[in-house]
This record gives sequence, C-alpha cells and structure tokens, in this order.
Amino acid sequence: MRSLDWVDGAVELVDQTRLPHDTVTLRIGTVAELVAAIQRLSVRGAPALGVAGAYGVVLASAAHPPDGDRAGFEAAVASLRDARPTAVNLARMVDRVAEVARTEPDRVLAAAHRVRDEELAASLAMGERGADLIATLVGDRPVTVMTICNTGGLAAVERGTALAVVQTLHERGRLVEALPLETRPLLQGARLTTWELDRMGAPHRLLVDSAGPFLLARGAADVVLIGADRIAANGDTANKIGSYSLALGAARAGVPFIVVAPTSTVDPATPDGTAIDIEDRGRAEVITAAGRATAPPDTAALNPAFDVTPVELITALVTEDAVIRFDQGDRIDATAHGGAGVGDGTAR
Amino acid sequence: MRSLDWVDGAVELVDQTRLPHDTVTLRIGTVAELVAAIQRLSVRGAPALGVAGAYGVVLASAAHPPDGDRAGFEAAVASLRDARPTAVNLARMVDRVAEVARTEPDRVLAAAHRVRDEELAASLAMGERGADLIATLVGDRPVTVMTICNTGGLAAVERGTALAVVQTLHERGRLVEALPLETRPLLQGARLTTWELDRMGAPHRLLVDSAGPFLLARGAADVVLIGADRIAANGDTANKIGSYSLALGAARAGVPFIVVAPTSTVDPATPDGTAIDIEDRGRAEVITAAGRATAPPDTAALNPAFDVTPVELITALVTEDAVIRFDQGDRIDATAHGGAGVGDGTAR
Repeated sequence: MRSLDWVDGAVELVDQTRLPHDTVTLRIGTVAELVAAIQRLSVRGAPALGVAGAYGVVLASAAHPPDGDRAGFEAAVASLRDARPTAVNLARMVDRVAEVARTEPDRVLAAAHRVRDEELAASLAMGERGADLIATLVGDRPVTVMTICNTGGLAAVERGTALAVVQTLHERGRLVEALPLETRPLLQGARLTTWELDRMGAPHRLLVDSAGPFLLARGAADVVLIGADRIAANGDTANKIGSYSLALGAARAGVPFIVVAPTSTVDPATPDGTAIDIEDRGRAEVITAAGRATAPPDTAALNPAFDVTPVELITALVTEDAVIRFDQGDRIDATAHGGAGVGDGTAR
Repeated sequence: MRSLDWVDGAVELVDQTRLPHDTVTLRIGTVAELVAAIQRLSVRGAPALGVAGAYGVVLASAAHPPDGDRAGFEAAVASLRDARPTAVNLARMVDRVAEVARTEPDRVLAAAHRVRDEELAASLAMGERGADLIATLVGDRPVTVMTICNTGGLAAVERGTALAVVQTLHERGRLVEALPLETRPLLQGARLTTWELDRMGAPHRLLVDSAGPFLLARGAADVVLIGADRIAANGDTANKIGSYSLALGAARAGVPFIVVAPTSTVDPATPDGTAIDIEDRGRAEVITAAGRATAPPDTAALNPAFDVTPVELITALVTEDAVIRFDQGDRIDATAHGGAGVGDGTAR
C-alpha cells in the first residue's frame, strides 16, 4: 500500500486528515492543490513530503515549461519549497528535481520517480536490517514490539522507518504483536499507526503513552523501536515527545531500544543533544484531545514537540546503509553520514 | 473550598462529572440519591467517599431509625457499602458510623462529622509535613512542583494529599508553579487538578503525560509529588499509570520523588510491588479521549489503571503522622501503619 504515488499524470495520496475514520484518496493535478494538501497536513512526514515535492515539480514543469515560462516555473517551485518551511527534505527534493527540469526537461518525471524509488529502497533496507538486528539481539523468534508516533508508510510513501521493521518482522512470521503508544497530544499512534497495522494485518494493542515504561517493566515487550526527527553527531536522538520515557523504561527493563532513521536524519553540525532546541507547539494541542476541550479554556500549558534521548540509552541506530551498535561502542561516522544536512523526521 | 460537606440536614457536593466546564453543587437528601451520585462518579477518591458514606448513614438513620425500622436501616447501609465495591474506605467509614447509629443513635451526626474532621486534619498535616520536607530537601525557596492525576480536595473533602502539599507551599509563598500531567486516559489532571489549582490561585501549566520525564531532564521542576492507591509493606507504591515514568525521570534528573498518602494506604499484607495485580480497565477508555473516538473502532488496547513504583525510586513517603525517608534507609513500621487495611487511594 503506497500512501502517495504518481498515477496517470497526477499525484494520488491518502488524505491523512481523514484517517482513521475515512480512507480517502485525493487526486491532485496542480501545484496549488498540492501546496494546499501539504499545508493542511493531508500529507506529512519527511520522506513523503520529499516525494510529494518531487512530483510537484513535475506538475510545475507541465504547467509552466521552464524553457518557456521560466518565471511561472520558478514561482511554482518556490511555492512548493515554502509549503512547509521547516521541512528540509521537502525543499531538498524540490531543488533536486527542479534542477533537472531546468537542464534536462524531458527527464523530470524520471528524476521524480528516482526520488520515490530511493525512498522505497531505503525503507525496505531499514526493515531488513532492523529485523536482522532484533533476531541477533533477542533471538530468531516471534517478538512483541513497542513503538511511538507514526513511522510507517503514511510518512514515507510505503513501509517507513520503525514501522518498516515491524512490517518486515510480520512478513517473516516473527511478530507476536505491536504495542503502539497513542502519542499525545496529536495522537498519531492512535489515529495513524493503528490504521497502518490494520492494513498490514499485524496484531496490535494500543496504549496510553504513560503505560509504555511500566509495561516494559512487566515484560510486555521484547524491543522498542522509534523513528527520529534529528540525530546529533554523538547519537543523541530527538524524536516525538515520549521517546525519552520509553528509553528510560527500556534501559531499566533491559529491553533493546532501537532508533530507525535514514542517514539524512544525522546532523553532523549538532554535536550532542544539549545543542538541540525544543520547539514548544503551544497550549492549544494540550488543552484539547481529538478536537474536544479537556481542561478549563484559559489553562496554560507546556508543549514540547519532541524530546532528546541520550545515546547511552540507545542500543543501536539502524539506517538504510548500516547498523550502528552504540551498546558495543560504535560511533556514527560523521564523514559518511548526514552530508545532506538535517532531516526533519518521519514522525511529525 | 470543600468539595463535600453536611449543610442544613443534607449532603452538598461538587458534581465532578460536570467539571471543569460547569461548577454545579448537588444537594442530596436521600440514600438513593447519594448511591447514584457515587456510582456515576459525581464524588470519587477514597477520603471523599469515606466522608460521603459517613453522612449517608446519617441520612439512612433519619429515614429508617435503627431502633424502629432496623431492616430498612440495614438495607440502606448495605446499599451505601456496595455503591462502589472496591472502595475500601467507603465501606470502612459506613461501618464505623452505622455502628454508632445502632448503639447511640443520637450521636450519629457527631460521628460523621468526626470522620470528616479527621480527613481534614490528615490533609492539613500532610500538607505541612510535605512542605517542610521539600524545604529540607531543596532549600526554603519557591519551587516548581510536578504532579499527576487528581489528589486534591475533590478527592478528599478539602486539600487532599499531594495537592495539599502544593496548597501549603502556595500559602507559604513557596510555590513558583505547579506542572500537572493531564493523566490519560481519564484526564483527571487536565479536568480536575487544573480546576483546583485555579480555585486556589496557584500558577500552573498543564503537560501531556509523556512530557513529564523529559521536562525533569531539562530542569523544569524541583520536586515530584504523587498520591498512592496502595503502598506495599516495603514501600513499593501503586498509583495512577504514569507515576512510574515520572519516578524514572526524577531519579535520572536527581529530583526528589515524594509519595503523599494517609497511613491507611499502607497494606502490611502486601510485601512488595510484585504482589500487586494490575487492573486492566478495558479498551474503551484508550480508544477515546474526552468522549471522542481517537482510533479505529475495533482497535484492541492494553489499559493498566495504575503502575507500581519500586521503593528505591522514591525519596520519601509523607503521611499525616510521619515522614519516612526511604533515601536515608528508613522503612515503614508495619506495626504502626495500615492496621486498618488497604486504602483505595485518592487518585481514582
């Protein structure tokens, strides 16, 4: 199941704002429609945004051939780039395909397909490497996996990062069940991950976030898998709020804690987690749940969007290229990773 | 502000099912009405239920004088006892006042008042002891306090347990702010604790549960205060799900983690936390939030109602009688505590 693809001259994508209640596929034939879909979060997650942006350039070059209406083309490209300013992967892939459009206009669709296919190959590779690592760490037997947020195909065209590993385990007959955390405040685990696990036929039970660490203490899971928003050069990992609590629980319970993320998520310019500023997304998300008020309307809130897990609590990092065993003293090779800059994660 | 009291021949109580949106005081003049209020959770929390039950016996003895209509009286008493079968404190206080009604019927109201006044005195004492302990541990200066669930006057007539300490700190000018966790799945922190903090004029900001441990790592609070559902003889403490995560975060951050609970919460018959069965409250609470669906309707869930924090993560236990410094090797004196049996907590 692809959450986003190029079909007969247009972008087709599953509208994530309608999940899990309705599965609606949008067919998008113009840059303006695509920008609107990105802005209202019908498509989200760094890899999916990159692929959406790549195909957006195809739409832009069809409407405004760069060797004819260059000004129109550049304006359309700029609108794609700016649809979500903090989504580095979106800008990067838009730039990559736009350069092809300017220099070899008849190869623009092939260039966009290549962006998509690289994402698919990376997800497959992360799934395989992650499942192999789990067999090494806990034995080649069916396992129960705890995870947080949404790190599956909805964020990444198909399969994703941490959830790609769950899918590979399931395909290998090595999954007992997945235990997704609901992931307050925006409930991506409850809304999106359960829906993806349903679609892949994987057994699962949902948890409130604060149940995760305690259930680890009671032996409820064999491994914890998370994605990443940004990984510092030393391995400290920024991810959805709640990841750090799971890491504390996993460390105390002796359960492996594995980060699954593409190499582009590693930021060599960030030496360690203390250098990562935590965005506060404001009180509105905290004083509501699923759109309904939960607290007195004037209640103030703290709303850190993500947290930072120190590398000493992380067993390993799985990328499309490598497994880095922090528990065995491995370090990230900064020259081999992250030259492309800062990823913005698959888990937004 | 009392959440429950005897006023002019009837029980008056704040209807907790209407909070935080509406503050409605119910006036209850019959046992049947009181049983219904208990069953629909208009009143909850062990101390408040005990006081409600005590005054319920007054209502029962007025309608069915035990020296006249003994059968009617005993039936009314039984309906009070059984309104919430797991609420040990309710049954205990009903029995205590019913015995007075049978033997000294003209002293029944005085006996019920004594139940209430003992709860008030215990809350005041816990508040004072807890605030003194914090001054000892972190210095006599304004502090920021993190807490979970609802442990205030709504659960305990007035002031409560952990929130009683917050109130005392605030009255002493030693509170910077309180950081209540929302407490999924039932959101007692968001719905009730914010409302109580508002009423006492204490500055506060609400958090999603999984933000607590990370904000401790970033130095956001000076101390964590929780209530307790049950305390084992060795000090292991069962409390609302999420307490264990906070304890892990506090231990790693070097922040004192303090349990505030009446001595009746100590259960000498439970040697340690491994002997505590964890009630699973079913999937309905997890796949909804504030009454609205958050996940596909057929989603399975794990829903542990509480967790167990091992005593080595607990700095101290504050009761109405004593401060037990686990961090200094103190132990609970089983002969001095809990002879009355198992409390059912202030935090349901």
